Amino acid sequence: MPHEKLSALRKLMAERGINAYIITSADAHASEYTAPFWRGREWISGFTGSAGIMVIFPEEAGLWTDGRYFIQAEKELEGSGIKLFKHGEPNVQKYTEYLAKNLPASGKLGFDARTVTAADFLKIKEALQDKKISFAHNEDLLDEIWVNRPPMPEEKAFEHAPQFAGKSAKEKLADVRAIMKKKNIAAYLVTAPESTAWLANLRGRDIPCLPVVYAFSLITQDEAHIFIDPQKIESTLLPDFTLHDYNSLPSFLKNFKTEKIYYNPTNTNVQLTEAIPIKSELKPADDIIPLLKAVKTHAELANIKNAFIKEGVVLTKMLFWLHEKIKERPVTEGEIARVLQKTRKTQAHYICDSFTTICAYGSNAAQAHYNCGETGAVLHERGFLLIDTGGQYLDGTTDTTRTICLGEITDEMKRDFTLVLKGNIALSHAVFPSGTTGSALDILARQALWESGQNYRHGTGHGIGYCLSVHEGPHNISQTYNAVALAPGMLVSNEPAIYKENRYGIRTENILCVTEKKPGGTFLTFETLTHCPIDTRAISPELLTPTERGRLNDYHKRTYEVLSPHLTTHEREWLKQATHPI
Amino acid sequence: MPHEKLSALRKLMAERGINAYIITSADAHASEYTAPFWRGREWISGFTGSAGIMVIFPEEAGLWTDGRYFIQAEKELEGSGIKLFKHGEPNVQKYTEYLAKNLPASGKLGFDARTVTAADFLKIKEALQDKKISFAHNEDLLDEIWVNRPPMPEEKAFEHAPQFAGKSAKEKLADVRAIMKKKNIAAYLVTAPESTAWLANLRGRDIPCLPVVYAFSLITQDEAHIFIDPQKIESTLLPDFTLHDYNSLPSFLKNFKTEKIYYNPTNTNVQLTEAIPIKSELKPADDIIPLLKAVKTHAELANIKNAFIKEGVVLTKMLFWLHEKIKERPVTEGEIARVLQKTRKTQAHYICDSFTTICAYGSNAAQAHYNCGETGAVLHERGFLLIDTGGQYLDGTTDTTRTICLGEITDEMKRDFTLVLKGNIALSHAVFPSGTTGSALDILARQALWESGQNYRHGTGHGIGYCLSVHEGPHNISQTYNAVALAPGMLVSNEPAIYKENRYGIRTENILCVTEKKPGGTFLTFETLTHCPIDTRAISPELLTPTERGRLNDYHKRTYEVLSPHLTTHEREWLKQATHPI
Repeated sequence: MPHEKLSALRKLMAERGINAYIITSADAHASEYTAPFWRGREWISGFTGSAGIMVIFPEEAGLWTDGRYFIQAEKELEGSGIKLFKHGEPNVQKYTEYLAKNLPASGKLGFDARTVTAADFLKIKEALQDKKISFAHNEDLLDEIWVNRPPMPEEKAFEHAPQFAGKSAKEKLADVRAIMKKKNIAAYLVTAPESTAWLANLRGRDIPCLPVVYAFSLITQDEAHIFIDPQKIESTLLPDFTLHDYNSLPSFLKNFKTEKIYYNPTNTNVQLTEAIPIKSELKPADDIIPLLKAVKTHAELANIKNAFIKEGVVLTKMLFWLHEKIKERPVTEGEIARVLQKTRKTQAHYICDSFTTICAYGSNAAQAHYNCGETGAVLHERGFLLIDTGGQYLDGTTDTTRTICLGEITDEMKRDFTLVLKGNIALSHAVFPSGTTGSALDILARQALWESGQNYRHGTGHGIGYCLSVHEGPHNISQTYNAVALAPGMLVSNEPAIYKENRYGIRTENILCVTEKKPGGTFLTFETLTHCPIDTRAISPELLTPTERGRLNDYHKRTYEVLSPHLTTHEREWLKQATHPI
Repeated sequence: MPHEKLSALRKLMAERGINAYIITSADAHASEYTAPFWRGREWISGFTGSAGIMVIFPEEAGLWTDGRYFIQAEKELEGSGIKLFKHGEPNVQKYTEYLAKNLPASGKLGFDARTVTAADFLKIKEALQDKKISFAHNEDLLDEIWVNRPPMPEEKAFEHAPQFAGKSAKEKLADVRAIMKKKNIAAYLVTAPESTAWLANLRGRDIPCLPVVYAFSLITQDEAHIFIDPQKIESTLLPDFTLHDYNSLPSFLKNFKTEKIYYNPTNTNVQLTEAIPIKSELKPADDIIPLLKAVKTHAELANIKNAFIKEGVVLTKMLFWLHEKIKERPVTEGEIARVLQKTRKTQAHYICDSFTTICAYGSNAAQAHYNCGETGAVLHERGFLLIDTGGQYLDGTTDTTRTICLGEITDEMKRDFTLVLKGNIALSHAVFPSGTTGSALDILARQALWESGQNYRHGTGHGIGYCLSVHEGPHNISQTYNAVALAPGMLVSNEPAIYKENRYGIRTENILCVTEKKPGGTFLTFETLTHCPIDTRAISPELLTPTERGRLNDYHKRTYEVLSPHLTTHEREWLKQATHPI
């Protein structure tokens, strides 16, 4: 019960003279996905959403989360005594403002320094600057009251083998060091586990849906250190690095006196930055490994294309199964997620799903991040079913969304489906000079919707890792400005959408690869990597221009060519129908 | 002769112990257009371009200008002993780097503090920080050697009468003060002459093409000061302001001790900032008057629409004249500019041209900022003629570009003309949610060109003043990010183009007004204010979609309806042909 847990925490706070305590959703790396060990905010509040920050005072407590989770948080926090603050809504206090208002002058603010980033700590300090607050930032109070806290993950790490990685760790180290030299960076602290995974060709199973090990690295021109649980590493692994215990990084940093250490403040925690003798912040857009990692090599792309064929086969088999099954008996949302996972397991080099499959029928799909759980709703032979799903393979990470027409739909649904499709087609055929950012292209995916007076409130496209996180930067395609230019070899999703509350949701998502329009030329374009039919039963053909129709038919022709060799006769016949020109 | 002038300047530098001297192209307000008094860089170097900065050392001198002027500067600087630095080209030193390299340690750098902005002075200081340089910044050395320097302008200022201004100065002061209060700005220094002109409903003739008076203002909640030459002001003008002599601002600022003074560092000169006791910089995007001024009121828009009809009549009369005249006798580029000006003079409330007309035949148009001078090239009945022209009227400022087909043109020229037109049509029909910036829309004007592997190197659109500067911020439409969102009532140009060196240039420019798509709704769109036929002889109709063709025909239908009542029978017949549907 949140009440009892909060009481226990408040007792500790009183003992330590702490006036307010912060609990975030973060691990020590500010990861988007975390191991259960780090889910203290969920444990104490009962709120299970992926994003949320709590502030606890002796008499009251607040939880801040964003628009994706308002409904869920309201439900899960009911009766907990924790007040919900809807982050981003007009006139809603930020948690820093709440702290500034309620902390007494000269008060003490406690938190676990591993779970707060340098960037967030700066914001907290700025908000509290007039109050002479002291910080008890090495207080993991949760640990003292959390009965049966899950342990830190202990599974073995493994090599991302040369045939998958393409480049050796030695070569990657040389690439990183060349940039460090150019930017006059003597020492570079790498805190994102995905960055160390990329650099060292290392993978693991520490975090659900994200095949990495919890690890930090510290690179200079002569040294390359990795901080990782030694139990996870076979002795033959990581020959190019000096290994240290995962927990020894702060003391190592304290004694690292010779050089200025550069770090990205948005994913470096306060325990680390407080330990660094001579600090220098890297602007997130200048962080070295994220940009290198985002530009996939030819070897990586060859593998990735293969993974996307496997994923296309998985999706097609599921669509065919659904097409047959729903005629025979009731099918649930949860079943579809299981069929997808089961089929993925039959594909080579599958590791796990790249995120929890979203399978949302009817009005459920109006929530962009719906989670159906084990069973979920029963599907009927009418309306839309939205499926957003992906896999982690050793040779690629996938992410696809399709909206399936299960039977009768209204003209409005057809129109909306077609407008979303127009956006998807326009973006995927964009031609743009090198140097163009994703923000400059975003309008292509929205224009048809905007002309109809509609919009969607999330970004159009995120980067995607290579056997790493399904969401990665530093580039994206969004209405919010991002200075990182799209470059050949970058992957980015293309997912325009429309959500009608209590009615339906539509999203069509393919993954694109940035390519040169002509070899060596200054213009770029995209290649679509995703192979999966788009439901032509939901299209109003009269809303498509001849060019758009031609592009859709070309896409379907290629989808059939690529996938049909890997299907059964029945599946192939179904796909032939599903990809028939309109 | 530059040689003799430079020698005289160097003699003075030696006398004063100055190691290097900077001469900019600026007046005391960092205006884009300046009075002849301020054109010292032109006088000493012989280079007549509008942008350029000179650095003079005892033994050498350099001049920095941008891509618009490379060819012209090379020609004009020949034999002057002044070295040309092509600003923005790869591996070309910046003038600050040149100073840093060549100034001796503990040396002295001289300049006229009125002609250097606070923002530029900061860059200079940053570049020289290791050298312990002292600054002699009250040295107007030019004034001591410039024989027959033009005087500061002396023409009378006049009121922008209520029927034109719409809002009284009292109301505008109240608007400014409300924002100051909200932003906690106690004192606001206004340095752009256009800003004081807007605030005080004051106009003048101090600067060619820009109907303003040189003036500064300083606003608090209780006080409103204007610093202006008292000879220019009739006693009945400016009842809402306390008047001071133009030159007394620095000493007034020195004694203004009670409050922090906010200013925009990009247009506030060093003489002023050095005089301010408690300084605070306004981010240019947060400057108060530019944003208020950019959003035209209903009363202003009603007037502006009228000015654009008059301008459309002027353009149509010129096009008809050209159509007739070129059959009879040779016509020159310079003649066309004169015909335009002569016709504008017959229109109500005309003040002057809003910039020097660009009339560029054939390959001349490949230079985006070609100046034909008095005569220029003789036109032939073939190829393209590019005309970019505008007027200052009491009821509006105009700016239009048309590319005219004088006879035979190649298929490539037709294709390029049509691609530029496609961009112009796409942008002018954009629909976008409120909050969208011009950078997000820019691609609409370029997409057709990009698909053909082509681009233009300038912005797509600039703001435009109301009986003020033809270029105004803070918004624009550009590949370069600008955080200012487009808002209803803002004007912006729409001018995609293509330039083929030594061959031809194409640009089609209309002025757009941001409007609400539906009254009170969250979506915005544009209304095109410019009425002038687009040359259908230069179009490849098969490259236009049916929608684009319909939009062009609608535009022409409206052009004929709006302009025909104001034309002679012959002109009307010609316009009927020119606006015939395709």
